[in-house]
Amino acid sequence: MTNIFFAHSGGVTSVLNGIAASVITQAQQSPHINRIFIGRNGIIGALNNEMYDVTDFTPEMLEKLARTPASAFGSCRYKLKCPNTQASEFETILKHFKHHNITGFIYNGGNDSQDTTLKMHEYAQSQSQPLNCVGIPKTIDNDLPMVDCCPGYPSAAKYLATSIYEASLDILSMCRSSTKVFVMEVMGRHAGWLAAATAMANTQPHLGPHIILLPEVLHNEERLIQAVKQCVADFGCCVIAVSEGLLTAQGKRFTDQRTTDAFGHTQLGGIAPIIAHQIHQHTGFKYHWSVVDYLQRSAGHLTSSIDHQHAIALGREAILALNNKLSGIMVGIHRINQSPYEWKTQYYDLKNIANIEKKLPPEFIREDQLGVTPAFKDYLRPLIQGEPILAYRNGLPDYFTPLTIQQLRTTYAT
Amino acid sequence: MTNIFFAHSGGVTSVLNGIAASVITQAQQSPHINRIFIGRNGIIGALNNEMYDVTDFTPEMLEKLARTPASAFGSCRYKLKCPNTQASEFETILKHFKHHNITGFIYNGGNDSQDTTLKMHEYAQSQSQPLNCVGIPKTIDNDLPMVDCCPGYPSAAKYLATSIYEASLDILSMCRSSTKVFVMEVMGRHAGWLAAATAMANTQPHLGPHIILLPEVLHNEERLIQAVKQCVADFGCCVIAVSEGLLTAQGKRFTDQRTTDAFGHTQLGGIAPIIAHQIHQHTGFKYHWSVVDYLQRSAGHLTSSIDHQHAIALGREAILALNNKLSGIMVGIHRINQSPYEWKTQYYDLKNIANIEKKLPPEFIREDQLGVTPAFKDYLRPLIQGEPILAYRNGLPDYFTPLTIQQLRTTYAT
Repeated sequence: MTNIFFAHSGGVTSVLNGIAASVITQAQQSPHINRIFIGRNGIIGALNNEMYDVTDFTPEMLEKLARTPASAFGSCRYKLKCPNTQASEFETILKHFKHHNITGFIYNGGNDSQDTTLKMHEYAQSQSQPLNCVGIPKTIDNDLPMVDCCPGYPSAAKYLATSIYEASLDILSMCRSSTKVFVMEVMGRHAGWLAAATAMANTQPHLGPHIILLPEVLHNEERLIQAVKQCVADFGCCVIAVSEGLLTAQGKRFTDQRTTDAFGHTQLGGIAPIIAHQIHQHTGFKYHWSVVDYLQRSAGHLTSSIDHQHAIALGREAILALNNKLSGIMVGIHRINQSPYEWKTQYYDLKNIANIEKKLPPEFIREDQLGVTPAFKDYLRPLIQGEPILAYRNGLPDYFTPLTIQQLRTTYAT
Repeated sequence: MTNIFFAHSGGVTSVLNGIAASVITQAQQSPHINRIFIGRNGIIGALNNEMYDVTDFTPEMLEKLARTPASAFGSCRYKLKCPNTQASEFETILKHFKHHNITGFIYNGGNDSQDTTLKMHEYAQSQSQPLNCVGIPKTIDNDLPMVDCCPGYPSAAKYLATSIYEASLDILSMCRSSTKVFVMEVMGRHAGWLAAATAMANTQPHLGPHIILLPEVLHNEERLIQAVKQCVADFGCCVIAVSEGLLTAQGKRFTDQRTTDAFGHTQLGGIAPIIAHQIHQHTGFKYHWSVVDYLQRSAGHLTSSIDHQHAIALGREAILALNNKLSGIMVGIHRINQSPYEWKTQYYDLKNIANIEKKLPPEFIREDQLGVTPAFKDYLRPLIQGEPILAYRNGLPDYFTPLTIQQLRTTYAT
């Protein structure tokens, strides 16, 4: 009987806690696993020996946890130093793991985190300390290679597509005498998967988004203005989704230019107001803009059932991998068939995952570069199916709140 | 047998179509009503003789319509000229009404629109044209006097409270090593009802919003900074809701100052980035901000059941008022009892409603002026109860789309 350690890493999603709940459930059912520890604020909890002992979570707690967005245990933005040049952090973590008889390490994060999982695997091997390391993907950005999709992305996609659909109905209602242009800014610093996802709402030509500005495409102001004018002529309005990572015609990120933007204005962040203003200057159209920001990655009230099913399956599969003494791998989602949608979990060598970023491929970008292709919609459609089963209390979702966590037993002292 | 005309006015909400569906349903069941017309883009449709004939809407269409946000028939920002100085618009409308044998006029809008309903009532009387005029309130701003609440507000309130709750869980997950301050901008140019609504998420001290900046309270930068520092010391983070109508210490609206903001920066609209930057300058805390904009007034996927029930009741009551030959009145929601919540529809004299704006009263504003009182939460709690019954199709809400409307018969020519 040994113990295992699990941690979240990086920006949160709507299904991170679903993965945690599944890891706990499966570990509880594994005869060789004794205690289950979760890092307080991810890997920082392993470094500081701040771990929650969640072994005795009840089915009721796990059910509620699984439906709660963000991370009930805390995540972090913290990259361990390279063990080849500065091994002290890895040493400390292994010391804490040894002390707690931890021989299984599951790390749930994006590109950087999978690199950490790999380094942990290699470092433990070099020290001959028994530690099996398994990664689980996570990122609303959907930019991990090899896998079909990353947990968190389908839910963010469903939320963004629904939101821009609803905003489109709003603009269509009002555009005759009021706002004609609406710009919605979504996340995705380097890859356009989230911006592209909004296209699911464009089920009829007049429903937005009419234009999608992707980080894979250099901004072309003239092309945009022409397209907006044509769109307003055709439908009375123009609804635009823009990625926060949009690049200028010169290939620089707009939002890096904190001192002066493309107009010589100082601005305080946000590409949506820049694009909206650019359009207004050339057309005079009344505009509104929205910056969705964190709302898109924590919208537990509108998750995708498929995403939730993926999350549960990956948590389970990670424990099964540990039970089978596997290490240096990541569990991920593989698409067996597009229509009808069939999928399975699969193992991936971490060496093929770590630090590699998957951008939107050219076959998913429309020829005019202002939208996506039907092939992209065929890819995404099955992933956003199904709505959450969520209890409400006093009018708000009944989530598992961090206070509940703070009341739990933790292993704060060695 | 005569005909009736109904129109939406002003910014849309999640339950405008619910009101329309209820008006249509009740009118279909009224023996004295023959045809039911709805203005294309509100009162503009009456001016231009562009009316949808919705008499033959089926129960299935009405059920779907009732769950669809925004206005399927189009709304407008258009205020009729005063009939005392320039009567031509009123004359034109009465001419079209006479032509179509319309003797009932129901207008669904905010302050300005109730003023129009009143003027229409008075003008028709002065011309001895038989026309009974009834108003139905509408505004997510909740700023109409006399009534308990305005349809649209409870749903926007529920959506905003849920959104900031979810964002709070996000910030709490990450704040140890990343974002510590999150600012969410909500609507409400003059009244703080929407900003106040976010307080429903603050069910435990560590859950945001920790601070609410209301348009009823002049901005005090020093007070804000002190409160943010204390909050981060107590909970590790600070979540703030700010009203778009926040006023500077000098009583000017921030977002009116397009050329230079409080920092001498040019900015493109949006109070959230200004407040976030102000905090950052004094504390160095990492921040994120969101501007929810239209998403809050069109979120049909997260409406309040009570709001929906109010909408249905008001639509029905407006038709009953016409059947009873009433005119110059508005139907509204009256609260009979707070707990358990009991309500009824009631008639209000339009003279007491038109052009009057109800701000957040002092008893709802917390003593430190950075939040709301328990009395406000007691007021709002019953209004956000219950979740929408909504069909989904291909992963998105299955709404009644404007295309369906365009296919309908309209009375475009006189």
